[in-house]
Amino acid sequence: MISPSDQNNTSDLHVSYQPLPGSEKIYKNGQVYQDIRVPARKITLAPSIDADGKSVPNAPIELYDTSGPYTDPDNRINITNGLPQMRRPWTLSRGDVDELPEATSNSGFKPMRAKPGKNVTQMHYARRGIITQEMEFVALREGFTPEFVRDEIASGRAIIPANINHPEIEPMVIGRNFLVKINANIGNSAVSSSIAEEVEKMAWAIRWGGDTVMDLSTGANIHETREWILRNSPVPIGTVPIYQALEKIDGIAEELTWEIYRDTLIEQAEQGVDYFTIHAGTLLRYIPLTAKRLTGIVSRGGSILAKWCLAHHKENFLYTHFEDICEIMKQYDVGFSLGDGLRPGSIKDANDAAQFGELATLGELTKIAWAHDVQTMIEGPGHVPMNLIKENMTKQIELCHGAPFYTLGPLTTDVAPGYDHITSAMGAAMIGWYGTAMLCYVTPKEHLGLPDKQDVKDGIISHRIAAHAADLAKGHPRAREWDDALSKARFEFRWKDQFHLSLDPETAEAYHDQTLPANGAKTSHFCSMCGPNFCSMRITQDVRDAKITSPVK
Amino acid sequence: MISPSDQNNTSDLHVSYQPLPGSEKIYKNGQVYQDIRVPARKITLAPSIDADGKSVPNAPIELYDTSGPYTDPDNRINITNGLPQMRRPWTLSRGDVDELPEATSNSGFKPMRAKPGKNVTQMHYARRGIITQEMEFVALREGFTPEFVRDEIASGRAIIPANINHPEIEPMVIGRNFLVKINANIGNSAVSSSIAEEVEKMAWAIRWGGDTVMDLSTGANIHETREWILRNSPVPIGTVPIYQALEKIDGIAEELTWEIYRDTLIEQAEQGVDYFTIHAGTLLRYIPLTAKRLTGIVSRGGSILAKWCLAHHKENFLYTHFEDICEIMKQYDVGFSLGDGLRPGSIKDANDAAQFGELATLGELTKIAWAHDVQTMIEGPGHVPMNLIKENMTKQIELCHGAPFYTLGPLTTDVAPGYDHITSAMGAAMIGWYGTAMLCYVTPKEHLGLPDKQDVKDGIISHRIAAHAADLAKGHPRAREWDDALSKARFEFRWKDQFHLSLDPETAEAYHDQTLPANGAKTSHFCSMCGPNFCSMRITQDVRDAKITSPVK
Repeated sequence: MISPSDQNNTSDLHVSYQPLPGSEKIYKNGQVYQDIRVPARKITLAPSIDADGKSVPNAPIELYDTSGPYTDPDNRINITNGLPQMRRPWTLSRGDVDELPEATSNSGFKPMRAKPGKNVTQMHYARRGIITQEMEFVALREGFTPEFVRDEIASGRAIIPANINHPEIEPMVIGRNFLVKINANIGNSAVSSSIAEEVEKMAWAIRWGGDTVMDLSTGANIHETREWILRNSPVPIGTVPIYQALEKIDGIAEELTWEIYRDTLIEQAEQGVDYFTIHAGTLLRYIPLTAKRLTGIVSRGGSILAKWCLAHHKENFLYTHFEDICEIMKQYDVGFSLGDGLRPGSIKDANDAAQFGELATLGELTKIAWAHDVQTMIEGPGHVPMNLIKENMTKQIELCHGAPFYTLGPLTTDVAPGYDHITSAMGAAMIGWYGTAMLCYVTPKEHLGLPDKQDVKDGIISHRIAAHAADLAKGHPRAREWDDALSKARFEFRWKDQFHLSLDPETAEAYHDQTLPANGAKTSHFCSMCGPNFCSMRITQDVRDAKITSPVK
Repeated sequence: MISPSDQNNTSDLHVSYQPLPGSEKIYKNGQVYQDIRVPARKITLAPSIDADGKSVPNAPIELYDTSGPYTDPDNRINITNGLPQMRRPWTLSRGDVDELPEATSNSGFKPMRAKPGKNVTQMHYARRGIITQEMEFVALREGFTPEFVRDEIASGRAIIPANINHPEIEPMVIGRNFLVKINANIGNSAVSSSIAEEVEKMAWAIRWGGDTVMDLSTGANIHETREWILRNSPVPIGTVPIYQALEKIDGIAEELTWEIYRDTLIEQAEQGVDYFTIHAGTLLRYIPLTAKRLTGIVSRGGSILAKWCLAHHKENFLYTHFEDICEIMKQYDVGFSLGDGLRPGSIKDANDAAQFGELATLGELTKIAWAHDVQTMIEGPGHVPMNLIKENMTKQIELCHGAPFYTLGPLTTDVAPGYDHITSAMGAAMIGWYGTAMLCYVTPKEHLGLPDKQDVKDGIISHRIAAHAADLAKGHPRAREWDDALSKARFEFRWKDQFHLSLDPETAEAYHDQTLPANGAKTSHFCSMCGPNFCSMRITQDVRDAKITSPVK
């Protein structure tokens, strides 16, 4: 095993410890659990100046903050130490877990597991009427009551992905009555990257608003890479365990067995992975339905299982062993992300029999998972033209009994490789409005190559836009105050406030400065687009200062 | 007056004379008018290889081409000569125009005007059952019959912006039964730019898919800049004449008069501007409705007129002189783009009384314009959350009697300055699906500064994505063959074909090459994302090669 410090100078992790420009990290304490500290990003605004020249204060804005300790200047992070394990005492306080005797990684982290016969999922507690620390945490984070959160978790309409072995996370909730979330993928894939680089990618992704991160690594050091990501991640981590299982048998899909897969699940659950993508709905009988598709099976997991099924002429072993999997999940509170192995890979293949057949099976599996109190969400497409997006959401709610939907885009056209963060954000915004709870990001390099740092940021920002546009359209009670604050700042030429309120304050200010770099221009009552004589906002203020309140005859 | 060659070395115009990679400029001849040559972009594809190793040809794809002679290697363009005046003989053949004796610019271009009492609009001909060259041109360009086009123009559901004094254009049609179009804005504004630079911006905009270009220049040399843009533009040019009128009175809105404005209209109509944004619906009685808005009036034209109305306590002179304006428009066939001076500038102000009051007035004005057979489209917002977008389209169709809608975005959130090409493309895609005929682009610098070349391209590509996604969702008969061809190429690892079929072939290939630069990688049956062992497409082909056609028991 390789220690991250053997491999490279990990103490010099290239991540910012500063908040975004104009933001301040604040914490709110719980009521039920007074020791919990819920982070938020506070933006203090300059006052407005009214028509009489008087200063009128603007209330500060508090925004949801995914970035964890990485934007808290009071924290210095050394990745070999990992983040503080905030949740460990919460878990231990419930008295239903055992600490295992041995660390499974050179991080020294000692895993926990439910005591025999115990179930440690948030759903299990919620259904027994227990409000956990995690539930109050997300309630405070989103502005709901803890009881509302508990009820959403109990019903299965929302999940809190929070493995007991990932005590470093700041809990978050995924469900259609909450803020729409986004996931960012990282992973070292074919091109090698160091462990510290992967941790850095995670920190970068959450700086810009990734709510969860999936580690899709398939290369060498897969166990240790994941370990250091987990120990340093304040957001839930998802994986696709079949990737590692396949590594163990040198990539030969036919040689997969339940035992190899099971051991991989346990290995990852003990490390602290918060949710697993499991393609248990890719059934043998659906595979021939893909034969006439334009682009066949485009999910890696789906194609691996299809190959296995056909080679053995047997039903998908993830389906036949689904109850066994539930037994594992509930000992650690790993959530299901039931994978859509048959999602469409092109506009032509959208909403076909293979896709919706699998979705119906995912609905059946949801009921089984819920019988074990295992938290569950459902993965969705993919590539879908706008006119077929709504049907995806309608069918998912109906077939999957209201479990949260987690979609990849969907991409609304196939013709824009290099810009699929945009084709995807379009479909994501719409399906988010219709009720999807989490949007998996797509980067500009989708279909073309591996994303670099800028691609990751572009993918995140475009899907953060989609998520927020969806929150606005759904009428989330706290969504619009952000837009209103920014627009008011814009109208009043409070340039610095406008930058600070931006989803990406650094880019907003840099773009402004490209045309009008002088510092004075940040307080001037016009901008570079129109110049002083043509400034519509200035003229409007003149009009408004004329104090017209009723129609002029 | 400044000749462009006085100002800089215009013969060295920095525009490509090459088609996009993998594309070939082709022309189709008319049937009714055999001398017309309609351009298209042809992409020749490599054959597929079937399971038995046999080569199966793929038909070439022909795409709509906005780029004019700039991508025809047989043309060398010298901007002081301008483009060939293809439409001049068509106009003269109708016998209803006079050539005016004098050039109005140093280009030497001699304007034409309708003979006294004549009306030379496409709508006028269409209503008399005449299929013009322009109508057959756009019919061939989009794959409809000339008679269908004539009927759409006659009914007002579509327009062909084609001033008789812009004989250089390749006619195009704007209407909701045709492909969704996009407009790109250029203009020298506060930061000075040379005339050749403005021509170059236009050529750049149409290379990437701008269907029309609006010249929003407000600085010095406004007349000459426009002249050289027009003489070199194969796409319709739109303007907002009040900008130039205001320059003539040193920016003092109160000093605007009908006479100054009228002379500006005639000046620009004689130069060849194809459509005018005219804010004739910004009525005095609507202005007080904006006083309580978060962001007041954000349209430059709207705010200028609001200021004028309030200063004089009189009704908007564009409204009171609307029939006079129609008389001018029909002598040259300038189309109306009835401006939405009261469009919302923030999410909060969307769909309010001011906006919809003005829209109703634009509907009244449409009827007056149509009584003069003047082609008309209607401008729309702006900033609108997704849940309020559809109402804009529904009301526009109802209030404006089916005239084409031309919207700026709409932007679906206010919180992403620096990324408003994305917030806008999202709303644009949706409203295009609902029936909007043309989408005005927004660049990443919107609200922040002046766009550079890369911003213009990013704005165009994102709105081309929106337009095409809308065409797909509307079920335009020829939209999907493009997606299908690209997806088939992707599935078969025909990398070069995939790049060539991309909206932006250069970026697609460059992104691919960042990870896998070797030439061999362009023919290999996997890509950098998953590597050979994890390639779902490869596995799918294995599955398919197993020739499964019915469920395996």
